[in-house]
Amino acid sequence: MKPAIDFYFDFSSPYAYLASEKIDALAARHGRAVNWHPILLGVVFQARGTKPLTLIPVKGDYSKHDFDRSARFMGLPFKLPEKFPLPTQYAARAYYWLNDSDAALARRFAHGVFRAVFVEGRDVSDLPVLLEVAQTFSIDPQALAVAVTTDGGLKERLRLAGEAAMARGVFGAPYIIIDGEPFWGADRLPQIEKWLESGGF
Amino acid sequence: MKPAIDFYFDFSSPYAYLASEKIDALAARHGRAVNWHPILLGVVFQARGTKPLTLIPVKGDYSKHDFDRSARFMGLPFKLPEKFPLPTQYAARAYYWLNDSDAALARRFAHGVFRAVFVEGRDVSDLPVLLEVAQTFSIDPQALAVAVTTDGGLKERLRLAGEAAMARGVFGAPYIIIDGEPFWGADRLPQIEKWLESGGF
Repeated sequence: MKPAIDFYFDFSSPYAYLASEKIDALAARHGRAVNWHPILLGVVFQARGTKPLTLIPVKGDYSKHDFDRSARFMGLPFKLPEKFPLPTQYAARAYYWLNDSDAALARRFAHGVFRAVFVEGRDVSDLPVLLEVAQTFSIDPQALAVAVTTDGGLKERLRLAGEAAMARGVFGAPYIIIDGEPFWGADRLPQIEKWLESGGF
Repeated sequence: MKPAIDFYFDFSSPYAYLASEKIDALAARHGRAVNWHPILLGVVFQARGTKPLTLIPVKGDYSKHDFDRSARFMGLPFKLPEKFPLPTQYAARAYYWLNDSDAALARRFAHGVFRAVFVEGRDVSDLPVLLEVAQTFSIDPQALAVAVTTDGGLKERLRLAGEAAMARGVFGAPYIIIDGEPFWGADRLPQIEKWLESGGF
């Protein structure tokens, strides 16, 4: 098995959602697994002195239009939630917490969170909403709630995941690294496919 | 013949160069002509409060890497010139000046300018260099030099082209508009192809 691909994202990134629906199958076609790394882009933007795309005048409006069209182009359902961007620290901590005991469950949960946000337009920054999503995967809501709100170690782990991502050059999402080669954006999936096929180009 | 496509660009934009090598043939496959509109992105960035991609920390370094890789992915030669970004008002004015008398020549000249910058790494902001490029297309260098440096009407025309572009939502390059539908970036060429094929999606 070749080394896993790294996939950095924020659950609040529309383009990361689009990539999340494709990256595992794409990687698997070329004998690769994918390590998912939820991070908080707000922290990254603050450190980099940038801001969320949708808040930039003119470009922000174009982007909202492009999210929709890119989703249709990729054959994926999409709806920008009313609350956007939204804070995702609970969802990200939940991912790492689940991943320790059951990586497959954490992956299913991550897809569930992305779809709750970008298909159903739900506000997963609201803890009860996130717990409802978790329950659809038979995750104990009470244990999850305690972990994401009170576990200092988990909080620190998410912070460190963000720092590690920045140390690797991450400045936006989705950010995918293959054997050291960085790819930014869902629109780089065709390049990623070619890269995996040919071992670089 | 269906309405022409509008292609907004700055001769100093690497991604616009990549798009410039593909857009005419792509449009022609679907019975469309392309109207080329060189503009000065510096003016657009100033109005929008943004700045050239390569000058943004971290993202700028990624971008330089991505220019190269995207060119290879698209099968195009590419070299970032030493002087970059570079002012392109002479080249843009020359385009409009030529286009009045010979649209085909203006198009060949535009390709020549893009390739001088992004294949040969030449500084076309230096008037003698631009005139050398013009001469390879049998354009009278003296008449061109007079037009781009002294013709106030031409200067005003370029300014108005930039304003018209901004009025249509242009905030970067390449920016391509098909029947009112805007596409930003060379990486949107696959979406453009599908859009032209299917009349929207």
